[in-house]
Amino acid sequence: MSLRIDLGRLRRDLEELGRFGRDPRGGISRPSFSRADLEARDWLKSLIVEAGLELGEDGAGNIFGRRPGPGRTVMAGSHIDTVVNGGMYDGAVGVLAALEALRRIHEEGAATGKAMEVAAFTDEEGNLVGDFMGSRAFAGLVDPDALRTGMTSFGAPLAEILSGTRFSVDSILAASRERPDLEAYLELHIEQGPVLDSEDIPVGIVEAIAGKRWRLCSFTGRAGHAGTTPLELRRDAFLGLADFAQKATRLTAADFEGGVVTIGKMTAHPGAFSIIPGKVEFTLDARSADPDALAGLEKALLALAEDIASTRGLTFASKLVDATEPVRIEDRMRALIKEEADALGYPSIELPSGAGHDAQIVASLCPVGMIFIPSPDGVSHAPEESVRWDDLEKGANVLLAAWLRLAR
Amino acid sequence: MSLRIDLGRLRRDLEELGRFGRDPRGGISRPSFSRADLEARDWLKSLIVEAGLELGEDGAGNIFGRRPGPGRTVMAGSHIDTVVNGGMYDGAVGVLAALEALRRIHEEGAATGKAMEVAAFTDEEGNLVGDFMGSRAFAGLVDPDALRTGMTSFGAPLAEILSGTRFSVDSILAASRERPDLEAYLELHIEQGPVLDSEDIPVGIVEAIAGKRWRLCSFTGRAGHAGTTPLELRRDAFLGLADFAQKATRLTAADFEGGVVTIGKMTAHPGAFSIIPGKVEFTLDARSADPDALAGLEKALLALAEDIASTRGLTFASKLVDATEPVRIEDRMRALIKEEADALGYPSIELPSGAGHDAQIVASLCPVGMIFIPSPDGVSHAPEESVRWDDLEKGANVLLAAWLRLAR
Repeated sequence: MSLRIDLGRLRRDLEELGRFGRDPRGGISRPSFSRADLEARDWLKSLIVEAGLELGEDGAGNIFGRRPGPGRTVMAGSHIDTVVNGGMYDGAVGVLAALEALRRIHEEGAATGKAMEVAAFTDEEGNLVGDFMGSRAFAGLVDPDALRTGMTSFGAPLAEILSGTRFSVDSILAASRERPDLEAYLELHIEQGPVLDSEDIPVGIVEAIAGKRWRLCSFTGRAGHAGTTPLELRRDAFLGLADFAQKATRLTAADFEGGVVTIGKMTAHPGAFSIIPGKVEFTLDARSADPDALAGLEKALLALAEDIASTRGLTFASKLVDATEPVRIEDRMRALIKEEADALGYPSIELPSGAGHDAQIVASLCPVGMIFIPSPDGVSHAPEESVRWDDLEKGANVLLAAWLRLAR
Repeated sequence: MSLRIDLGRLRRDLEELGRFGRDPRGGISRPSFSRADLEARDWLKSLIVEAGLELGEDGAGNIFGRRPGPGRTVMAGSHIDTVVNGGMYDGAVGVLAALEALRRIHEEGAATGKAMEVAAFTDEEGNLVGDFMGSRAFAGLVDPDALRTGMTSFGAPLAEILSGTRFSVDSILAASRERPDLEAYLELHIEQGPVLDSEDIPVGIVEAIAGKRWRLCSFTGRAGHAGTTPLELRRDAFLGLADFAQKATRLTAADFEGGVVTIGKMTAHPGAFSIIPGKVEFTLDARSADPDALAGLEKALLALAEDIASTRGLTFASKLVDATEPVRIEDRMRALIKEEADALGYPSIELPSGAGHDAQIVASLCPVGMIFIPSPDGVSHAPEESVRWDDLEKGANVLLAAWLRLAR
């Protein structure tokens, strides 16, 4: 018997989920514990119950649909929260494809030697207090101080956001106690980048998930009157950043294959037409899927910044504000996915994931595998985010086949 | 008889004026028509009356102290308003040195063939609706639409700022009708740059006042996920700006001697750690004391921006938001100042003014001359702005001598 997912049903589920959190400014805004998210959770729970699965929800709001079985649990999932003004597919595809796969397995009464469980993790997008709160809580890796004192991106403490729900900081901290014993974890996700789309390959097998270093940085020079200070006497902090941005990009491209560096936000002080910036603050995002390369890249970027500062009469300062470690996917998990894609006749390639995913956190508990489907034009975290239905069908069928094999 | 100013009296006046608008955040904040400015105006008017001069005030709030005489009027002045968190000397030095000079002339009963008048122009700093509102109104060069619809830097329309005073948009527009027939105008000012201080010269003779072009600009590319978009597939708007900032500085230094270019403020959109800037908006300030060079510089900068945009797959847009024309000081006015400095035994050099001044506007009415004194370390528009008292004495004595000679 060769099981296949029902694309029509999966598509209807995705479109229904996409109705929760429609934002008049564009796209979908469904951060965890928002009203839209609470409605979407109720909807997801009713699907789990209708499918005949055992509904579970832990103290962090992670939602589970379990098909009991002997032995350990093989889990598949992702998240249903979104960034503000995000799209319909980031995360949603992984949860609903896993649910569809498990529904088909359950409908067909497939015999398995393991329990199977679909998971929807809370706040993967980090709208509350840092990325991956739900999967971190599931793995017992949340920072109690961050939960208690951290400010959410909505300008309110987490406890205030939780006040209308049955969850609390304490329940989040206790969430990992309810965790089943895991055998393996699978996650289907949109690539969120352009590689599969540009190469016209429907299935990506993730070989590693990039780690990142986030630093808040500054160059400080001397403010001055834009009209009266000759160019050669300036210590313009922004020109230091301009120099750094260009050289950092060249250095990363030349010496750290697959590494990326991004300056996403910057503020000049005092910030006026006629005043030479005396200080500029900026964000620095550096990523690599290779742990040694990530450490080397961070070191090289800091050395470059110091070098530019000393050449230009500036000072450089930076503070690490977030870090996740790269995760290399085990060979046997990659081979399993490749074999199932091959058996289904779908072309596949291996590629790293530049974005972080819940799988990165669950990797601290058990072997993980990740399957990507193409993001048309590489667009994600935007209202224009999309998938092609035939790609989704292929990715979900590979998930079903690999999951079932792990659970046999 | 060789008249000299009384430095002790001038210094006391400057220190007294410096008490109006002390800002707890640092320095002096005395924008025109603020409470501090209204108090400072009353104080200045009482000094004028005490000196035995005829007090005048036009519909723009420009304050005058007149020593009547036959023939046309020879005027000297500057402004007493400040930028927010500014210093004690920018503008104040020119008004109070002129008042001191005219007091000495009047005390000594010097015979002159012309009327002499000290002037304090309103809102030179452009805290309300553009630079030089007072001198522009005096010269009949204000834009009625800007007065009626422009928003001040305090977020309220001009009419609201004026509501507690005896002034109005209509009275400002009518101010030029009260203007005397001008023979010449002199202005003493701090350099606001480092040239005189670094060369240890007490007197600067301004040869030209720079004009400027202010543009609000943007590069637009494509936003994307900082983790998933390979460097070579990015259209990062901020990297376009970084490239432009460096090349614009090099181009200006290489091809436009004495020209300056400054990017003082920039904002990336959407502006987050993990999102490649899809758009960056920034200010562009370009200045030169030479009219042809200013036009050439502006053209070269716009061509550079377009070139960078097309190379990097970005689009560039810009909008002119303010412009002043360079003013070349007439040879005979520069010679007059040089001769009086020489006669007093003070070293002097000629230099351009990178900053704009009321003299630039009054130049539309009559010949003007400008005398600079050193700004220690080039600092201005800051609480640390200063003068050395012996430099001030020399500058004020040159002003007195040149003014008296023009009025003989």
